[in-house]
Amino acid sequence: MERTFIENLKEKVGQSVQIAGWISVRRDQGKMVFFDFRDMTGVVQGVVLPKSAAIEIAKEASRESAVYAEGVVNQRPEKNVNIGVQNGDIELEVQALEIVSKPKELPFDFDAELNIDTYLDNLPYTLRSQRARDIFKVQATIVETFRSTLRGQKFTEFQAPALVGGDAEGGAAAFAVDYYYDQKAFLATSPQFYKQIMIGVFERVFGTPKVFRGEKSSTTRHLSEYSSLDFEMAFIKDHRDIMAVLEKTMKEIVSKVAEKHSDVMARLGTEVPLIPEHIPVLKLREAQEIIEKEFGGKAIGEPDLEPEHERQLCEWSKKTHGSDFLFVTHYPVSKRPFYTYEDEEDLGFTKSFDLLFRGLEITTGGQRINDYDVLVGRMKDRGLDPEKFSYYLQAFKVGMPPHGGIGMGLERVTARMLGLHNVKEAALFPRDMNRIDTLLSSGENK
Amino acid sequence: MERTFIENLKEKVGQSVQIAGWISVRRDQGKMVFFDFRDMTGVVQGVVLPKSAAIEIAKEASRESAVYAEGVVNQRPEKNVNIGVQNGDIELEVQALEIVSKPKELPFDFDAELNIDTYLDNLPYTLRSQRARDIFKVQATIVETFRSTLRGQKFTEFQAPALVGGDAEGGAAAFAVDYYYDQKAFLATSPQFYKQIMIGVFERVFGTPKVFRGEKSSTTRHLSEYSSLDFEMAFIKDHRDIMAVLEKTMKEIVSKVAEKHSDVMARLGTEVPLIPEHIPVLKLREAQEIIEKEFGGKAIGEPDLEPEHERQLCEWSKKTHGSDFLFVTHYPVSKRPFYTYEDEEDLGFTKSFDLLFRGLEITTGGQRINDYDVLVGRMKDRGLDPEKFSYYLQAFKVGMPPHGGIGMGLERVTARMLGLHNVKEAALFPRDMNRIDTLLSSGENK
Repeated sequence: MERTFIENLKEKVGQSVQIAGWISVRRDQGKMVFFDFRDMTGVVQGVVLPKSAAIEIAKEASRESAVYAEGVVNQRPEKNVNIGVQNGDIELEVQALEIVSKPKELPFDFDAELNIDTYLDNLPYTLRSQRARDIFKVQATIVETFRSTLRGQKFTEFQAPALVGGDAEGGAAAFAVDYYYDQKAFLATSPQFYKQIMIGVFERVFGTPKVFRGEKSSTTRHLSEYSSLDFEMAFIKDHRDIMAVLEKTMKEIVSKVAEKHSDVMARLGTEVPLIPEHIPVLKLREAQEIIEKEFGGKAIGEPDLEPEHERQLCEWSKKTHGSDFLFVTHYPVSKRPFYTYEDEEDLGFTKSFDLLFRGLEITTGGQRINDYDVLVGRMKDRGLDPEKFSYYLQAFKVGMPPHGGIGMGLERVTARMLGLHNVKEAALFPRDMNRIDTLLSSGENK
Repeated sequence: MERTFIENLKEKVGQSVQIAGWISVRRDQGKMVFFDFRDMTGVVQGVVLPKSAAIEIAKEASRESAVYAEGVVNQRPEKNVNIGVQNGDIELEVQALEIVSKPKELPFDFDAELNIDTYLDNLPYTLRSQRARDIFKVQATIVETFRSTLRGQKFTEFQAPALVGGDAEGGAAAFAVDYYYDQKAFLATSPQFYKQIMIGVFERVFGTPKVFRGEKSSTTRHLSEYSSLDFEMAFIKDHRDIMAVLEKTMKEIVSKVAEKHSDVMARLGTEVPLIPEHIPVLKLREAQEIIEKEFGGKAIGEPDLEPEHERQLCEWSKKTHGSDFLFVTHYPVSKRPFYTYEDEEDLGFTKSFDLLFRGLEITTGGQRINDYDVLVGRMKDRGLDPEKFSYYLQAFKVGMPPHGGIGMGLERVTARMLGLHNVKEAALFPRDMNRIDTLLSSGENK
């Protein structure tokens, strides 16, 4: 018999069907056995009646067994209808049950309270929980909407390299790789140089590469490996063109998540983010004045925002502008990478921005320097050797228009979108200082 | 003035417009100057008349300068119409020209004959050539069509990790990474274990991760880093369910490339691949008989196919079945990874397959072992320590249905699709034994 997906059972009332999936719940009531069956499309209740040929197997079918079940789809009597629940008005009267894989052991119940390490130690199991499936379904929607929104604006996808020749930028700590001939390669900390090269090729490009940061920080915001949503575009007037594309992209992401995953938002107890017609924009110095005035902190004159400031600004943005998002622009030249464009009308400050979302910086972007001589000058100002950037610099010798772009952490966006405290919950197999799958201290990574 | 994309100029005949882009061609005819302007949407001819305010700038505007040009879109006189060329019936009468970036130096013309090393040494420039832009436009279509076809079949995208804890499989040479606390991590040679874990979560998953192979091979088929198009699905009957999904995916890819890129196929002098209703399928042993019978080679009894055999089989497949694709199934257990499913009805051989495309293997796939005890047994048979796989093995302890999937090299598919001899031409910034951007021997990667 052809398999029917659980989401389609409601169209098959009165018919014999076969479903496949896992047993989420088993309730043995002596004579009868009730199941909740789960497949990738949903959940349905099954009942095995005393006279069913499946009753013996039903007695031994444990939770999380992978099964095929055959039976008849019945309308439930009025009094048993479960309103607002998928398939709450039908049930499967099971006539045959085949266990294709029976669990050896289940470490704990999905609804057990777990500390993060136990959760991560058992991901091949814990990822099957409703909560984890919800998170990564939403993540798939975020990454695909990022791509489709940009494709709709003539951006071309490109595959940025993960292995790079040098830790040239020197800012973020790059992991070293044993390459051929006893040479060291490094893992990319960003696709920055490559996406700039690529705007010379396609004008507008995006990618979703993995990037790697060997920072010695083990916080709820840091990952050693993450997915970076990146775009870069040419022939811009200034950084505001980039912000406009990003704003459009975030609106589309919020809208798609709301449209496709209202059930997830409800289960996780979070609201659809507020994103107004235009996301409010503050210069860093304006933001710092607000922090001091509204929250009494110490901020004016600092070159950057503290995490606490980011939270306060988002609180302000929500209260005064009805926005869970806030752009902060014009960070000082000294705090931005060498390739950042200085504002000619606000010297010492850059045409760059961060996008804050529910208290956390999720994006950094801005206009880049496109003039070869200015760029080389900036490198020298920072004590960087232009020779080490010669591959990248080629792009600036052959006609490089004004351009800029952004990089955005997929896991951070997912976490903020769903109100998750720890970004590790929004990374499928998170890597950090202490863990690659297993804890490094466990000695299993040898 | 708002920028008009070059592809939209034909709708603006008689109007004043601004375009942005690069000067592809400059022909100075003394009094007048002709240009070919290029942006991401196409090419248009521009003319600067003697009386134009732009004539002085036009005299100094060199090829590959990034410019803004303003002017009037004119219909060309009948005798100057260039049929079959984009915008062959219009030209831009340029009234203002602004050079936003002038090349310092151009290493050579785009149509110069280059050896591969010169091409790769100059990618920030050579990627701007029509040929390179064609290749990577098609590649973007391939990767997106792979995703959209699978999403249409209920597959969920997931982000596979690049950093892994151990070189557990031991087959392909994994690059070692200096991780924290003087521990070694490794770069993933495949997302295999993670996608198997993920079918327990979403049943059907796909991803397009970068994978890394430290093989000591510098051939036209090898890359140290490549994009792997991967999917995996649960509740299959056998490997033929996987082949059916792959066949559907390849048909959709071929069809989209043909639909969107007929101009590229024409420029590269290649044909749309032949893909019949059903791709022919041979068992390895049948394939070997054909090789000996049709081509006189020595093949029967060998555990695998030689590159020459793959070429011969594709020749046969095209001639006898009108197909540029060919499935070869039932490789011996000994030649496949430990997790490959053995065919109960053909012991010693596996429910696995390769997909050959125009003479080259582009995909390996098959059904996987889903029983914990059988899997652990296979590990032991190979002298592998199940303890080192304990994270992966968790998935098999908690209800693991029959499943399988494939991995396919994006660069190989691109190269075969476009008739490129060297896979490095289909990798944006190819890494191999001798090169990461610059040649390792050049000493710039220090």
